[in-house]
Amino acid sequence: MPDPLPSWRGTETKKSILEFIGAVSDPESADFVPEVERVAVFDNDGTLSTEQPYAQLAFALDRAAQLGKPTTPEELKAGGIGAALALLQLTHGSITTDEFDEVVRAWIATARHPRFGRPYPAMVYQPMVELLSALTGAGFACWIISGGGADFMRAWAPDALGIPPHRVIGSTGSVTFQVGDHGPELLKGSDVAVIDDKAQKPVSIHRAVGQRPILAAGNTDGDLPMLQWTAASRHRTLELVVHHTDADREFAYDTDPVLGAGTSDLLKAAAEGAWIVIDMATDWATIYAPT
Amino acid sequence: MPDPLPSWRGTETKKSILEFIGAVSDPESADFVPEVERVAVFDNDGTLSTEQPYAQLAFALDRAAQLGKPTTPEELKAGGIGAALALLQLTHGSITTDEFDEVVRAWIATARHPRFGRPYPAMVYQPMVELLSALTGAGFACWIISGGGADFMRAWAPDALGIPPHRVIGSTGSVTFQVGDHGPELLKGSDVAVIDDKAQKPVSIHRAVGQRPILAAGNTDGDLPMLQWTAASRHRTLELVVHHTDADREFAYDTDPVLGAGTSDLLKAAAEGAWIVIDMATDWATIYAPT
Repeated sequence: MPDPLPSWRGTETKKSILEFIGAVSDPESADFVPEVERVAVFDNDGTLSTEQPYAQLAFALDRAAQLGKPTTPEELKAGGIGAALALLQLTHGSITTDEFDEVVRAWIATARHPRFGRPYPAMVYQPMVELLSALTGAGFACWIISGGGADFMRAWAPDALGIPPHRVIGSTGSVTFQVGDHGPELLKGSDVAVIDDKAQKPVSIHRAVGQRPILAAGNTDGDLPMLQWTAASRHRTLELVVHHTDADREFAYDTDPVLGAGTSDLLKAAAEGAWIVIDMATDWATIYAPT
Repeated sequence: MPDPLPSWRGTETKKSILEFIGAVSDPESADFVPEVERVAVFDNDGTLSTEQPYAQLAFALDRAAQLGKPTTPEELKAGGIGAALALLQLTHGSITTDEFDEVVRAWIATARHPRFGRPYPAMVYQPMVELLSALTGAGFACWIISGGGADFMRAWAPDALGIPPHRVIGSTGSVTFQVGDHGPELLKGSDVAVIDDKAQKPVSIHRAVGQRPILAAGNTDGDLPMLQWTAASRHRTLELVVHHTDADREFAYDTDPVLGAGTSDLLKAAAEGAWIVIDMATDWATIYAPT
């Protein structure tokens, strides 16, 4: 059998993950979980891909400039929530879903990460891509439950992570059906209807999946309710916390520099619940796939 | 090859459906659609199963009596929207999602249809069950996009129709995550957040599926936007309208007797768009599976 997780070093973390996958998918095991109940949920930014900067924020800034209304990260920060909403309205609203999808795909094809120079879809963590693949191979259905915009992520995440569009769940604004000049279309509004973070994450899982997961992975306190909800399953479960400890190969931080999301509650719960904390610097042999 | 639709008579309707499935799944065909884009959406009540009475309404009336606050269909009708919301709050709200699921499953196991004496899951149309199976076999992902409550349907539709819970989309109320006496739980509120009917159906398809369908089936004007949205795909599509014409074996009606949903706009669009109108009396050899 080839190693299903070649980008993971042979630490306890890797051993624990492989032991869990084996136990829940082995009909002879006391921890066996029927395939239909093998649901795994993943936060995206900071858990499956680099979140410094947020790809969606980089897109919004580029798109605002393209639309003739440029703003800088500094202006955005100084402007607070009002500036953020104005940017969102300008770059994500009053556009059909088909047009928005085209705009995002065009941006994704050319944009590059400011530090690493890679396309944003190539900023996904290779060890997590391998984990998704190993889980899929073991009969799991893997879902993304992200605070990022669903329409933004669905334009690139399915290809980059091998997860079909309907399993990419995120924040949403209102959408209106209308029969326009070009026939039936869906128009994106400029509000934020659902912010898919914190306590909304288990609610979104219930709405979108309709089943309780047995595996959950996150990296900030915004993911804590999702991991708590998963841990309370009647089945054996696995909770994973991605800890950003690698300033050389990625970033090292405990508080998200843009949105201010912390990790103290999550790390405390991880210690109490014997959840697995993935130490990027020591557990991962590779961060990004070779280009 | 055995007939994939044995409960359908050999009419033009059956021939057209089989020809469509063959064309879009044949790589040699000019109408070929890649498997990942073969999405089919179905209304439930009146399209996949008998809607006289609505199973969910029968459940609500039985549940109200069980809770010591009985009401009759006549009182409900006289009380208008206020009485309907009160019944909904009493029977669907202030209960955890796990508890609600148990309550519905217990009801489903014992309740019987007033005219046919069959369990409600056995009120699904056998010809449509065969169609779902034939589509799945041809690489389609089949979804239910219903005006009924998602939590109610997910308790029985997956078993009765062979559609996994996450592909059962319906109306929803608010849900709150909380850490209660028994650990993390999701509490159902008593409001109606999304009524999954009319223009909301294509919006729900966008949110839940993230792809445009190439097949849609419905039976009232509430399904028209879903069929219009599907018909505007860049691929070849199939639109199906279930017409209730069989008073002997099911029911014959053009206007839903409870909610008043009509069929005139849908039948007009079907005539204009050359959509297929399924005449239950002539197209279906069998309505329900033998018990």
